[in-house]
Amino acid sequence: MFEEKLKEFEPIFYPKSIAVVGASSNIKKIGSGWVSALVSAGFSGTIYPVGSSGGRIAGLEIFPELKQVPGEIDYVIVAIPSQFVLNLLDDCAVKKVKAVQFFTAGFSEIGKPEGYKLEKQMLEKARQGGIHIVGPNCIGIYCPEHRISPLGKIGESGPVGFASQSGGIAAKLMEIGIARHINYSKGVSFGNGIDLDASDFLQYLAADPKTTVIGAYLEGTRDGNRLFNTMKAVAKAKPLVVWKGGRTEVGAQAAMSHTGSLASSAAIWSAMLRQAGAIEVHSLEELADTLLIFPRIRYWQGIGTAIIAGLADGGGGISVYAGDVCIENGLEVPTLSHETKQELMELLGEAGSIFRNPVDVSQAQSRGLATLFQAIDLVARDHVSDIILIQEDIDILLPIYSWEGLEEISEFIIDLERRQKKPVTVVLPPGSAEPERLQIEQKLLAASIPVYISIERAAKAISKFNQYSCWRQTEDSHQKAAALRKPDKIQL
Amino acid sequence: MFEEKLKEFEPIFYPKSIAVVGASSNIKKIGSGWVSALVSAGFSGTIYPVGSSGGRIAGLEIFPELKQVPGEIDYVIVAIPSQFVLNLLDDCAVKKVKAVQFFTAGFSEIGKPEGYKLEKQMLEKARQGGIHIVGPNCIGIYCPEHRISPLGKIGESGPVGFASQSGGIAAKLMEIGIARHINYSKGVSFGNGIDLDASDFLQYLAADPKTTVIGAYLEGTRDGNRLFNTMKAVAKAKPLVVWKGGRTEVGAQAAMSHTGSLASSAAIWSAMLRQAGAIEVHSLEELADTLLIFPRIRYWQGIGTAIIAGLADGGGGISVYAGDVCIENGLEVPTLSHETKQELMELLGEAGSIFRNPVDVSQAQSRGLATLFQAIDLVARDHVSDIILIQEDIDILLPIYSWEGLEEISEFIIDLERRQKKPVTVVLPPGSAEPERLQIEQKLLAASIPVYISIERAAKAISKFNQYSCWRQTEDSHQKAAALRKPDKIQL
Repeated sequence: MFEEKLKEFEPIFYPKSIAVVGASSNIKKIGSGWVSALVSAGFSGTIYPVGSSGGRIAGLEIFPELKQVPGEIDYVIVAIPSQFVLNLLDDCAVKKVKAVQFFTAGFSEIGKPEGYKLEKQMLEKARQGGIHIVGPNCIGIYCPEHRISPLGKIGESGPVGFASQSGGIAAKLMEIGIARHINYSKGVSFGNGIDLDASDFLQYLAADPKTTVIGAYLEGTRDGNRLFNTMKAVAKAKPLVVWKGGRTEVGAQAAMSHTGSLASSAAIWSAMLRQAGAIEVHSLEELADTLLIFPRIRYWQGIGTAIIAGLADGGGGISVYAGDVCIENGLEVPTLSHETKQELMELLGEAGSIFRNPVDVSQAQSRGLATLFQAIDLVARDHVSDIILIQEDIDILLPIYSWEGLEEISEFIIDLERRQKKPVTVVLPPGSAEPERLQIEQKLLAASIPVYISIERAAKAISKFNQYSCWRQTEDSHQKAAALRKPDKIQL
Repeated sequence: MFEEKLKEFEPIFYPKSIAVVGASSNIKKIGSGWVSALVSAGFSGTIYPVGSSGGRIAGLEIFPELKQVPGEIDYVIVAIPSQFVLNLLDDCAVKKVKAVQFFTAGFSEIGKPEGYKLEKQMLEKARQGGIHIVGPNCIGIYCPEHRISPLGKIGESGPVGFASQSGGIAAKLMEIGIARHINYSKGVSFGNGIDLDASDFLQYLAADPKTTVIGAYLEGTRDGNRLFNTMKAVAKAKPLVVWKGGRTEVGAQAAMSHTGSLASSAAIWSAMLRQAGAIEVHSLEELADTLLIFPRIRYWQGIGTAIIAGLADGGGGISVYAGDVCIENGLEVPTLSHETKQELMELLGEAGSIFRNPVDVSQAQSRGLATLFQAIDLVARDHVSDIILIQEDIDILLPIYSWEGLEEISEFIIDLERRQKKPVTVVLPPGSAEPERLQIEQKLLAASIPVYISIERAAKAISKFNQYSCWRQTEDSHQKAAALRKPDKIQL
């Protein structure tokens, strides 16, 4: 699907050479920052700094004009005032540049006629020159595999693709990705999107073999029909998680000033996303939380959630809480089977434990880790559950089991998923032992276990995954039925 | 109001001596843990460990029987199996103990007749002996001022009181309190609450002069009428924030196994809380977030929120997001006055900024911190806003302003509140610079600025505060009107 986009976008995500226009030997200049970012990120192609003052930046010669660059240029990053962009596009045409990204702002988002006019002129020049525009008013491309990053730093390469109208949201997605092991295939911030917009990038990500799940932050579109049809097609191929910013009047007015996006009803967007089979989220946290869980869930077979809320002291209230939020977020929390409850009771005794589901196995703590692991195993292997949600409270566990014990617990949890062939999600609530908590979080995330800071956020993410799985099943059975109606198309 | 509770509860929150029953020279025993916790917390009264095996723990002599303790005992903490509790209560009566806290579990929460029977017998014995019971199945008292903590560690003493049916939730509230500077006057976990229950502790906290805001985690009550009347009276005196656990069937079943609480409809609870003038919250995070903001808001005059979402690069998308979540959480986000917009435009120029509200002052970054501070001051002093919400993204700011710049920003924000006499709330979203972020969080919190990890959580907390202020105003005007109807009661 959309395979033609792969070749078309090759110079954008995998350019052999990048020119940065607006560079100078003053490292404080924004253009110079772009050069430094490419160097820090370890971009292995050729970097051509361009700036009228000449000189050197990051050990590279600065060319006074784009036309004076000796070699071929695939991609240009522009950080010069808006009054110079039309001339620059002429130079790009001369150099047969494939795509230009404008960091430059000051166009339609200002809300004045001259801004709209300038965008129109840019687009005409780009079309004439056979040049694609990314932006304006954006931070462009993030491609860990090809070592392009507007931040200068790069996370691991992975299966998550994203398209964001906002540069700030895109940058924060990169930062959160680095911190929480949300590993990206590639991402893009496309700002005002006057040429390539959400639809184009979503089509590319759908075609990209390195991407298995797609996230998007959108504020508006100039072609709603195309976006709807694109999302419908993309969602059939890969999970598509969409956050629409500017749902309220105040948010929409900010979006107008931000990317020149016109307001449209939140209800219409929600309906469109639902019909397209996209998964709607409502905040940065929810977008990141959902993108975190998708590539990490293996062995999925249903929606029954076994919740182990108390590994030691004080699991009672958390069990009540976990039961409430999982149910309120649409998960099922089935009662454990009679056999499991019986075995747990024999293992741990009755007082101070809760064996229904959520499960509180606090009483294991007086018997040691082996008993704790045995109890968790009993719950995890019960056929009533399809996914295991474990709350691990470091404040409580650290004084009881010490750091070595916590490491054993992490190993056990990582192994539990492999052994029981059921997805495991862990909640590590913040408290007064942040350094230890963050270290355990890193270990579990690196081992592909999704980790959240609250049961609520974990439950929401699981529920988004579940929403997709249900939609996917219905969609697949529709497709099968349609195929059956056309007997010549059946594949045996 | 409820002043009689102060004297009655003196031996519970300010005991001169505490006996711990179930101690042994084995520090792994739970009773020994209680002794260690009191010693670590620095309890300055007398501690009497009691345990049949005798010996010493934490340098203290262990008395084989409670009756053998030489001095007077105000308060007893019990960690022995449930079959011994009746005899122990006899001993307590002999020693004229004022109150007994049972950590011991295995009563009505097990759901068997013998558990209920035992609770009834305990209560009878306690009443006969003039003894109060805290619990059973609880971790009892937290009183930083008097250096009592079940965790062994103690946060700063402050104005927040809490009552929690769950020991785990109580412990987590203490941990979060230590981490986030939610400073408690005192707290209590009362478990099954067979004698003193939520109503008693809420009445005490209402009377306690050290407490100005009260939080509660409740799973159920044996006397709904009394609780309702208590909450109504308490909420009149002090803000009362209530989280009801067990709102769903699954949660309620867990609550039954946890504290023997009977299920009751979530809708009935919500209605009751609303009528009582209490502020309902739905999670641990929301409870903590709300308790954090109440004592920190000074200079409050209304609900107009000025949002400064972009201090540097990438504030556009965050402005859109902040506008959406503030509006969706019931705040007002009024457009800045024409004069302020004009002054901002002169200061920063037009391109890349958003001056409506939310405000994006990113463009200040090329002009330095003095300009940034000037821009924030312009927004903060605008009469349209009553509260200032600032998103400070450390991932973005650290590379631009370095650590010294971030410290200047913190100083500026702390001073801003004092200077503009408007409450300031700060959002510090996590990312890839956690150590620096946590350090800034600590500094702002210590200076009494409420800090949240997301705009959503900040908006929710502000909105809870606002809900209380509105209710308070209505309530006060009703009281005034009532007073006017009785002219002899007018105070001039």
